[in-house]
Amino acid sequence: MTGVKTVGLLGGGVIGAGWAARAAINGHDVVICDLDPEAERKIGEVMVNARRAYSRMTLAPLGELGSIRVVRTIEEAAAAADFLQESLPEQEELKIALLGRADRAARPDVIIGSSTSGLLPTKLQSGMTHPERFVVGHPFNPVYLMPLVEICGGAKTSADAKERAATFYRSVGMRPLLVRKEIDGFIADRLMEALWREALWLVHDDVATAAEIDDAIRFGPGLRWAFMGTFLIYRIAGGEAGMRHFMAQFGPALKWPWTKLMDVPDLDGALLDKIVAQSDFQAGNSSIRDLERLRDDCLVSVLQGLRGRDFAAGSVLRAFEEKLYERDASAMVNADHKVSGPLRLHTAKVEPRWVDYNGHMTESAYLQVFGDTSDALFRYIGIDAAYRASGLNYYTVETHIMHLREVREGEPLHATTQILAADEKRIHLFHELYRTRDEMKLATAEQMQLHVNTAESRACPARANVLDQVMRIAEKHRRLPRPENAGRQISMPTTGT
Amino acid sequence: MTGVKTVGLLGGGVIGAGWAARAAINGHDVVICDLDPEAERKIGEVMVNARRAYSRMTLAPLGELGSIRVVRTIEEAAAAADFLQESLPEQEELKIALLGRADRAARPDVIIGSSTSGLLPTKLQSGMTHPERFVVGHPFNPVYLMPLVEICGGAKTSADAKERAATFYRSVGMRPLLVRKEIDGFIADRLMEALWREALWLVHDDVATAAEIDDAIRFGPGLRWAFMGTFLIYRIAGGEAGMRHFMAQFGPALKWPWTKLMDVPDLDGALLDKIVAQSDFQAGNSSIRDLERLRDDCLVSVLQGLRGRDFAAGSVLRAFEEKLYERDASAMVNADHKVSGPLRLHTAKVEPRWVDYNGHMTESAYLQVFGDTSDALFRYIGIDAAYRASGLNYYTVETHIMHLREVREGEPLHATTQILAADEKRIHLFHELYRTRDEMKLATAEQMQLHVNTAESRACPARANVLDQVMRIAEKHRRLPRPENAGRQISMPTTGT
Repeated sequence: MTGVKTVGLLGGGVIGAGWAARAAINGHDVVICDLDPEAERKIGEVMVNARRAYSRMTLAPLGELGSIRVVRTIEEAAAAADFLQESLPEQEELKIALLGRADRAARPDVIIGSSTSGLLPTKLQSGMTHPERFVVGHPFNPVYLMPLVEICGGAKTSADAKERAATFYRSVGMRPLLVRKEIDGFIADRLMEALWREALWLVHDDVATAAEIDDAIRFGPGLRWAFMGTFLIYRIAGGEAGMRHFMAQFGPALKWPWTKLMDVPDLDGALLDKIVAQSDFQAGNSSIRDLERLRDDCLVSVLQGLRGRDFAAGSVLRAFEEKLYERDASAMVNADHKVSGPLRLHTAKVEPRWVDYNGHMTESAYLQVFGDTSDALFRYIGIDAAYRASGLNYYTVETHIMHLREVREGEPLHATTQILAADEKRIHLFHELYRTRDEMKLATAEQMQLHVNTAESRACPARANVLDQVMRIAEKHRRLPRPENAGRQISMPTTGT
Repeated sequence: MTGVKTVGLLGGGVIGAGWAARAAINGHDVVICDLDPEAERKIGEVMVNARRAYSRMTLAPLGELGSIRVVRTIEEAAAAADFLQESLPEQEELKIALLGRADRAARPDVIIGSSTSGLLPTKLQSGMTHPERFVVGHPFNPVYLMPLVEICGGAKTSADAKERAATFYRSVGMRPLLVRKEIDGFIADRLMEALWREALWLVHDDVATAAEIDDAIRFGPGLRWAFMGTFLIYRIAGGEAGMRHFMAQFGPALKWPWTKLMDVPDLDGALLDKIVAQSDFQAGNSSIRDLERLRDDCLVSVLQGLRGRDFAAGSVLRAFEEKLYERDASAMVNADHKVSGPLRLHTAKVEPRWVDYNGHMTESAYLQVFGDTSDALFRYIGIDAAYRASGLNYYTVETHIMHLREVREGEPLHATTQILAADEKRIHLFHELYRTRDEMKLATAEQMQLHVNTAESRACPARANVLDQVMRIAEKHRRLPRPENAGRQISMPTTGT
C-alpha cells in the first residue's frame, strides 16, 4: 500500500500525459497542471492510446479508471497530490523555479519526482524548502507501457524518499532502477546517446540511411536487448570459458577504429577484474547452457509476439513459415496418399505458451491443435490461399471435446482424422490426439464443418475439386469403425444435484 | 530457388555451428571443416539448442533435417559446397590464406561469404583467384534465430554475388541488409560498440554495475529496439511536428557531456536536411498516430511474449496482472453477489492475437474465453492459489461448443454461466458468450468440470467451503430455464454421405 490516491502532475506534454494515463489506469485520480488550451484534447488522445494498449495487453480486470482533471496553476496540482511528478520542459532555471513553487504548495510528506532525462537532482532541488523528498524518476516513452524508471537522488534527498518513490512507481506497474551516482544522462540515456551519436556519424558519412541503421538494430542486436543487456549477451557469446575469456578475445577490438573517435577506458587488470566479478554476480548460478536456453526462449517469444503484428522481425518469421507451409502442401499433393485408416496429417509439440501453472497443456490449446488438424485436412483436400481468396472456406460450427489424459510441455503429439459423414456443404469429422512416444490417446474432438461463402456468411456447396476429395475420403472412411465417443452428449446422472 | 543443396562451412565455433544448425533446419546438407577433435560434440550441442528453439517457435512443418558432416580440410568442405560460408577466428592473415585455399577448391560459381564482424572484404578477398564471388555476410549470435545478416562487398565483389548471397540468406529465413560502404565494423557492430564503450565507462567510474546497465537496457530502450530503431523512435517522440522539430529540441543535448568524450558531427543545415529527408522517407505515409499505435502494438506483443517466459519485462507485466487479479477477487468476495440469473463473471475483448486472416476471432480463442470464464467461476466459488497449492482443482473433462456468429478484433465480450447440475465432484455448466455492445449471442459452451486431486490425477470431493458455494448457486439456477442447446449431439441427417 502506497497511501497514494491522487497523483499530481506538472506538465501535460507527451511525458506528462503518459504519466496521467498510467496513473489513471491504475485507479488514481489525476490533477494535472498545463497551460496549453488544448491540453484536455491532447491528454485525451494519449489516454485513448493507453487504454487501447492495455486492453490488448492484458485480460486481467483493470478496475475503474481514475479521473483526470486539468488545472492551470502549479499550486492547485501540488496541493491536491499524494504523489507529485514534474514533466516540464528541460530547462534548468524553469524547473528549479516551478519545483520550488510546487514544494511550497504540497504537503511536506508528499514525494516529488522529476521526469528530467538528464538534469541533476542536486540542482533541481536547490530552490526547495523540503528538498529531502525530491527524486529524479526518469521514465521512457510511452510512459504508460515502458517499465523502466530511473531513480536518482540529489545531495539532499533522503533514503526514505527514494524508497517511497520506488514503491509508488512499482505499484503502477513500473520497474525502478536506482542510480548510484548523480551523473548527466543517468544510465539509459547515456547508452542511447552513445548509440545515437554513432548513428548520426553513419548518416553524416553516407555509410547508411536512417532506415538502414534502424534495420541494423531491429533485425539484429535490438531483438536481444529486449530482454538481456550487453553484458549478459557477451557473457553467453564467450561460452563456457566465461567473461574473462570473452574480454580477452574481444577486448582488442576496442582499439580498432570502430565507432567515431570515442575514447575507451584502459582495460587494465583492475577494470577487467571488476567486470568479471560483476558478470559472475549477475549470472548467479546459471550455467552458460541455461543462459543460452533462456536467451533462445526469450528470442522465440519476442519473434512470436512480433509475428502477430507482422512487423519488423515478425514479418521475417511469418514469411519463413508461409514458405514452409507451401512446401509442405505441395509435397503432400504430390505424394498421392493412400487413404485407408484415419488420416494422419498433423503433428505438433506442446509449446511452452500452451501450458498452465501445473505444466499441463491448457484447455484452449487442445482446440488450437484440433483446429490446426482441421486446417491440415483442408490443405489436404485442396483448399489453398486462392480458394480462400475467392471467398470460400470451411467454418467450424460445432465441436465436442473429450479430455482423456494430461500432457506436459515439450511432448510430441500427432492427430488423426476420420470423416464420419459428408455432403456438398458439410464435413462431420472426428479427430483424435495422441502422445506420439507411446500412442497414448489424450483427447478427441468431434466437429461439424460447414462450407461457406465468407463474404455473405452463408452456407454454400464446395467446389468440385474439393468436394471430390472430401467424398473420396468419406467413402473410404465409411468402412472404418465408428469412434466410441462420437455423437456423445454431456449429462449427469439424475442422482446429481 | 537458390540452387543450393550442400552448404560448406569453414570453422565450427559458436558462429559456424550456428550456421550449420540454420542450414540443416532449412533442409541443406552441411559439410563443415573444423580441426577440433570435439567438433562433432560441440556442433551437436548447438544443433540441440536450435531444434529446441524451432520446435517452440513454429508449428509450420519443418521438413527433413539436412545432414551434418565434419571434415578436416578446407578443400573438402569447399569442394562439396554449393554455398560456402567462412567463420574462422578474426585474424586477417589467417582468413586471407584460408579463403584463398577455399577459393581454389570451390567451383567458380559458388558464392563465398565471410562471417567476419569487422574485417574489410577488399582485404579478405585479396588472395583469391575469383574475388568477384566473395562477400561479407555478417550474422548475429545465435545465428539460427537472429534474422539480420549484413552483406558487404569488397572492391572486386560483383553486384551479382551480393544479390545471390542475399537470395540464399533470405531462403534460410534471414533478413539481409546491404552495407553501402566498406567500413570497419559495418553498421550494427559500430552501434553496439558505441554503447558497449559507454557501458565500460559506467562500470569503470562506478556509476553502475553490469547488472544495472543491463537492466537499464532491457526494461527500457531495448524493448523498443526489438522492433524500431532510434530514428523512428525519435520521430515518434517528436510528435506531429516531425523530425526537424525533434532535432531542434533535442539536438542541443548532443553538446551536453552525456557519453564519455565522444565527438559528434556538426548538426549543420546539410546534415539536418539529410536526416529529415531520410526520416520522412522511412515513415512513408504513416502519420504519427499510426506510428504510435504500431509502436504500442509491438511493445505489447513483446511484453506479452516475455510474460510467457516470466523473464525481464515479462516478469513486470506478470506481477502487475497478479496484483490486478488479487484485487478483483477480493472485491468480488466482498460484494456478496445476489445470484438470481446466470452469473456474469467474465469480460474480455477480442485480442489482436486471437483473430485469423479474415479478422475474425479464431476457433481456439473461443475456448480460451470459455476457459477464462470457468476460471472466473472457480475464483468466485472460493478456489484460490492456496486451494490449488493444496493439490485440489477442477479440470474440464468434456466441452461442447456451438459457434453461432462471428466477431471481429477489438469487440468487447462478456460471458454468462449457468450451473445445470452439480454434486460433490462435478459441475455441469453452460456458458454463453455475447458481443457486449448489442448482446448478440456468439457461442455457447457446455462443460463437465471434475474436481480432482491433482497429484494423484483422480476425482475427489470438493472441500466444504467450495462445495457450499457450488450447491447454493446450483440450487438457485435450478429454477432457470434449461438452455436450448444443452445436451446436444453432433449429427448429420442420414441423407448426408
